[in-house]
Amino acid sequence: MTTESAFIAMMRGIATNAAARELKDDAAVLEIGQEAIVVTHDMMVEGVHWLPSADPADVAWKLVAVNLSDLAAKGAKPLGVLLGFMLGEDEWDRRFASGLMDVLDSYNVALLGGDTVSSNRGVRSLGLTALGVATHLPVPARSSAVAGNIIYVTGTLGNALAGFEFAEAGLDAPVLLRDAYHRPIPLIETGQSLAPIVTAMMDISDGLLLDASRMAAASGVCFTIDLAAIPLSDPYKSVRGTTRDSRLQAAIWGDDYQLLFTTAKDTPLPISATAIGYVTPGSGLKLTEVGVPIPLPSSLGYEHR
Amino acid sequence: MTTESAFIAMMRGIATNAAARELKDDAAVLEIGQEAIVVTHDMMVEGVHWLPSADPADVAWKLVAVNLSDLAAKGAKPLGVLLGFMLGEDEWDRRFASGLMDVLDSYNVALLGGDTVSSNRGVRSLGLTALGVATHLPVPARSSAVAGNIIYVTGTLGNALAGFEFAEAGLDAPVLLRDAYHRPIPLIETGQSLAPIVTAMMDISDGLLLDASRMAAASGVCFTIDLAAIPLSDPYKSVRGTTRDSRLQAAIWGDDYQLLFTTAKDTPLPISATAIGYVTPGSGLKLTEVGVPIPLPSSLGYEHR
Repeated sequence: MTTESAFIAMMRGIATNAAARELKDDAAVLEIGQEAIVVTHDMMVEGVHWLPSADPADVAWKLVAVNLSDLAAKGAKPLGVLLGFMLGEDEWDRRFASGLMDVLDSYNVALLGGDTVSSNRGVRSLGLTALGVATHLPVPARSSAVAGNIIYVTGTLGNALAGFEFAEAGLDAPVLLRDAYHRPIPLIETGQSLAPIVTAMMDISDGLLLDASRMAAASGVCFTIDLAAIPLSDPYKSVRGTTRDSRLQAAIWGDDYQLLFTTAKDTPLPISATAIGYVTPGSGLKLTEVGVPIPLPSSLGYEHR
Repeated sequence: MTTESAFIAMMRGIATNAAARELKDDAAVLEIGQEAIVVTHDMMVEGVHWLPSADPADVAWKLVAVNLSDLAAKGAKPLGVLLGFMLGEDEWDRRFASGLMDVLDSYNVALLGGDTVSSNRGVRSLGLTALGVATHLPVPARSSAVAGNIIYVTGTLGNALAGFEFAEAGLDAPVLLRDAYHRPIPLIETGQSLAPIVTAMMDISDGLLLDASRMAAASGVCFTIDLAAIPLSDPYKSVRGTTRDSRLQAAIWGDDYQLLFTTAKDTPLPISATAIGYVTPGSGLKLTEVGVPIPLPSSLGYEHR
């Protein structure tokens, strides 16, 4: 099978337009008249992105939320979504529709269109395109962190991981963990308030360490992140503890949809966030634990989604 | 299984924003500043929208072309596309990428972004979102044909049907028929030149009669189409003849991507097209043959795609 990185490399050879941002960003940014349109597309596949036992309403929620999260990372105001839907069982589709209505209502986002297809066999796959309009120019990018910047993350990490483990075991999870996995919250307002003050921003979908390494590479700088600074929630700590391994797992697992951003030192933040490291000249990602260098884990995050 | 119409009815309950055009149009139309953005999303599924024997380069071409055809029906200039891709065999994916580059180059359209997913089992599905900017306001709709209008269609119909039959039989088709099925041409410039003079416009993807009945319903009028006026190509005629059944098949089969439009009587056309009928008060679709009423076929076109 083609690896994802090999295919994306082929696509980069095609995506030469500046709006595509070399396919290295959360979303494409198109300048139209005086406005900048932000557009993103994500797919979810049964068995890969959701467990067969998942509530279809949660699948709909997540499909929309992960795309809105990409808009949030650009400080964009969502305009609407288009849905690519593969028909299935009656009851599944009805529950999906109810979850879709729920998430669109919650974030006041319009369903604009899309496509419906039938497939008699095989797993289901769903696609969603989200469009938004930038609230601040220039639109935040992954590629503009500079040496001397501080690295921040919003909220807490690892909750989706812990929520997934409960779901996989068929157990009821504490609500914060459950919702983090099944009903992630796109940080739309947070992204808009951060857009004017960040040097670089992205959402954490594939794991903090992997996404941070991508931001460092896109910016041509080195990121140093301190594991002890990784913010963990109380429910996460009570389930998985605060060992190095627990913090590493929280920093590797994806699906958190918190915002990772950098600012110039001493920039006041409009929202609360946790400083987790700093930017230096050079390249790559370094990990410390209370300031002491520690080795990077063999995998930095989730490569295929 | 949920029927497509039942699911779309659920979606219409959600898609209440004016930009969604009640999900009854080829594309959504979003007004942003002084511009109107046109956006559409189509999916293609292995075994449903392409034969397993299809050249992956042709699959890529068609995926892009059918979406650009939706933009053409709005008189829009394409800005770019986002691709939802499910990874598969190495060689298939490489051929797909080459076809993608081909079609994007041919129409000077940018690849803006998208998503790549893996699935170890099941059929492949692909999604494409196309964005364009309207070249004429108001943007043509399906819903504005009025009594007294003339109904026109561009080009010839049925070529994709004949091309499909050759492909299914594993035979070489005349090039016009082959290309109509494998490499349809989105009528981007034609759509732009028609936009200022049409009362209603759409592309024919699901069959002339079905799409015409949808335009009549959206406009709240009756369409009368004369079967003898349906334009057929010479290769189509030589393969399938000019019998009533041959003309009916050409009028029912989809995949033609010609433009169906209405204009006020005596409006000069900027391009060549064939007058195939007229609009009257009332509702529904009527069929004639050299002016004599004939019954509608039991199926007007392709309902699921």
